[in-house]
Amino acid sequence: MASTLGLVTPQQMHFGEALPLASGAALADYRLVYETYGTLNEARSNAVLVCHALNAGAHVAGLDANGQPGWWDNLVGPGKPLDTRRFFVIGVNNPGSCFGSTGPMHKNPASGRAWGADFPVVTVEDWVDAQARLVERLGIARLAAVIGGSLGGMQALAWTLRHPARVAHCIAVATAPSLSAQNIAFNEVARRAIVTDPDFHGGHFYEHGVVPRRGLRVARMIGHITYLSDDAMEAKFGRRTANGQRHGASAAASAEAGAGAATMADFAYTTQDIEFQIESYLRHQGDKFSEYFDANTYLLITRALDYFDPAREHGGDLKAAFAPARGKRFLLVSFTTDWRFAPARSREIVKALVDNDAAVSYAEIDAPHGHDAFLLDDARYHGVLRAYFHRIAAEVERV
Amino acid sequence: MASTLGLVTPQQMHFGEALPLASGAALADYRLVYETYGTLNEARSNAVLVCHALNAGAHVAGLDANGQPGWWDNLVGPGKPLDTRRFFVIGVNNPGSCFGSTGPMHKNPASGRAWGADFPVVTVEDWVDAQARLVERLGIARLAAVIGGSLGGMQALAWTLRHPARVAHCIAVATAPSLSAQNIAFNEVARRAIVTDPDFHGGHFYEHGVVPRRGLRVARMIGHITYLSDDAMEAKFGRRTANGQRHGASAAASAEAGAGAATMADFAYTTQDIEFQIESYLRHQGDKFSEYFDANTYLLITRALDYFDPAREHGGDLKAAFAPARGKRFLLVSFTTDWRFAPARSREIVKALVDNDAAVSYAEIDAPHGHDAFLLDDARYHGVLRAYFHRIAAEVERV
Repeated sequence: MASTLGLVTPQQMHFGEALPLASGAALADYRLVYETYGTLNEARSNAVLVCHALNAGAHVAGLDANGQPGWWDNLVGPGKPLDTRRFFVIGVNNPGSCFGSTGPMHKNPASGRAWGADFPVVTVEDWVDAQARLVERLGIARLAAVIGGSLGGMQALAWTLRHPARVAHCIAVATAPSLSAQNIAFNEVARRAIVTDPDFHGGHFYEHGVVPRRGLRVARMIGHITYLSDDAMEAKFGRRTANGQRHGASAAASAEAGAGAATMADFAYTTQDIEFQIESYLRHQGDKFSEYFDANTYLLITRALDYFDPAREHGGDLKAAFAPARGKRFLLVSFTTDWRFAPARSREIVKALVDNDAAVSYAEIDAPHGHDAFLLDDARYHGVLRAYFHRIAAEVERV
Repeated sequence: MASTLGLVTPQQMHFGEALPLASGAALADYRLVYETYGTLNEARSNAVLVCHALNAGAHVAGLDANGQPGWWDNLVGPGKPLDTRRFFVIGVNNPGSCFGSTGPMHKNPASGRAWGADFPVVTVEDWVDAQARLVERLGIARLAAVIGGSLGGMQALAWTLRHPARVAHCIAVATAPSLSAQNIAFNEVARRAIVTDPDFHGGHFYEHGVVPRRGLRVARMIGHITYLSDDAMEAKFGRRTANGQRHGASAAASAEAGAGAATMADFAYTTQDIEFQIESYLRHQGDKFSEYFDANTYLLITRALDYFDPAREHGGDLKAAFAPARGKRFLLVSFTTDWRFAPARSREIVKALVDNDAAVSYAEIDAPHGHDAFLLDDARYHGVLRAYFHRIAAEVERV
């Protein structure tokens, strides 16, 4: 569906009061970039905050100055599941990110040089606190809902724990109550690839006029493997060779190769050049990502993921952790083929919420796309969100 | 179980006749390192060939000069499942590897410098042909069995297709009829990490006195994630922090942290240093591997894995590919938690064999360790192998 919001202009807000962080450090002075869609009603009761995941920012919906649609444009807009004719929707970029808000590429006032790897380590809870200040400045005492997918889902959950009086509904999609050892392992390999790239320069590569592209590429390739389901990758690429393109074979020959009917003679027998289409896809994704994503941001965001673990302060007891959520209303959504944040992880959250007598709806969507499904336009998934937002809108409009 | 074979001395054999390769190139002149255990009987009918996987060589069992046990020492030896009192067991290192046989670190006679990235690309079938020559030179017309796990299992299968008259039994453990797109993807990321390491020097790093350690470390870390099951990693490491060691906390505090009862205050809030034990484990594995494994070998061996696909020449028809296996006898073993080479992949092979009226035994072992299980000493797994080899020994000794 084409964007129906049209051009959207990002806004920014400066915060002069220090933001205390979980690490004990503080962000003395910072700027948040945000976008809004729709109109805040007179009662200021129809605001929905959208939290972003790793590779996204405040540009949730509509078209930016380059004509690029927002990352959740299929979900947010007039007539869409999160309907901007009824809701006032806020997208905000988190501090430490590389999409406009204060981050490691900006000047550290203490040193006069770019923060680089010295940017304070931020957590999901720190982000939520920063978002809460923005919401307050926008004159919104209580959000109708907060929504996010993946890392954004963790932020949505954290809202109900840190600012329970300031949010009515929480919608957490394709998320988890904490990363598993395997999740942390993938993050760590990606970080090592970046940090050991000689162009990283201890995080101060900005001053050297270089970017640790090799590390970013590898990090993104690893990420992409975990975003797709094994089956989706098999269906999309299988063992199809890239040689149709490479040797300029006829369309018929390419189609045959695509059908797996090729022979060993189709290979170039090379360890460094591309033989299979999946390799071409991953390299392309890695190259694209390394052109625009900040290496220090990658480290910060993956660490925020690693740290998130509300049960930690409660001896591992997730029910105890979710005690502040009592009385809140939740929608949890997971996808059957998501092996990064599997449905079982969402069910852990559902159980902890139900044990706290929260009102919980849970949808486990049978979708083939793996973790990526939370960004895609699946009819059942969007149907669930549409119905849930319809209910919230009715509540808001009834008051 | 301690090794009962004692000191084993590797042997080597030189081959002056060129080995034609699948790529169309040839290996003009090469050396194979091998080891043998047990005694070849008079009829020369009790020989079992063991094929190695990525990170292994000819040293299958017993102790080497450094006192290191072989990589399958728990399986091979007097009284062990593959009993060297009854069988003459051969371990051989494949060309292109870095454990003694001719490989990319040796001199290319054509250039006078180390082969480096110019070493010919080798396939599973090329290795099997090289092994067949060794077996012939040892005076063995027909192997009682060929056995291998993972990539070694592919070699065992390829023996029955390329040299069906020269092998009676095939035992293929934790293997697949071809890599999936996801398998290839993991290999490709690892290769990119190595190739883009500035110390790789296009594969000619030997001349520069350096090793692409950064790339090898990342490659090995990725590998380790795929060798372990998600559950095994969770059980072994979970979200346990490394700070017990780091801050020299008391044993009691460490145990408490280990139990997940730690708080956020246990973290150092760092993106580059270790926070979780899983990170420490992966870094250690990466460091160790980068000390001894050859980068060009890593590229060659992962490519051999990528290429293996006996169905390819038969329009994707695995049954047609296994037609030469008619009359052979097979044992296939898979492990329930192996997500690298899942049981479903072994079942594909079983079906193709059964469709060819081969005699197939298949054991799906409920083991928690993921792909690594094929190297471990699981009672049910070893019980299956012991029984199967007992049957082969009885056949051999009856004749």
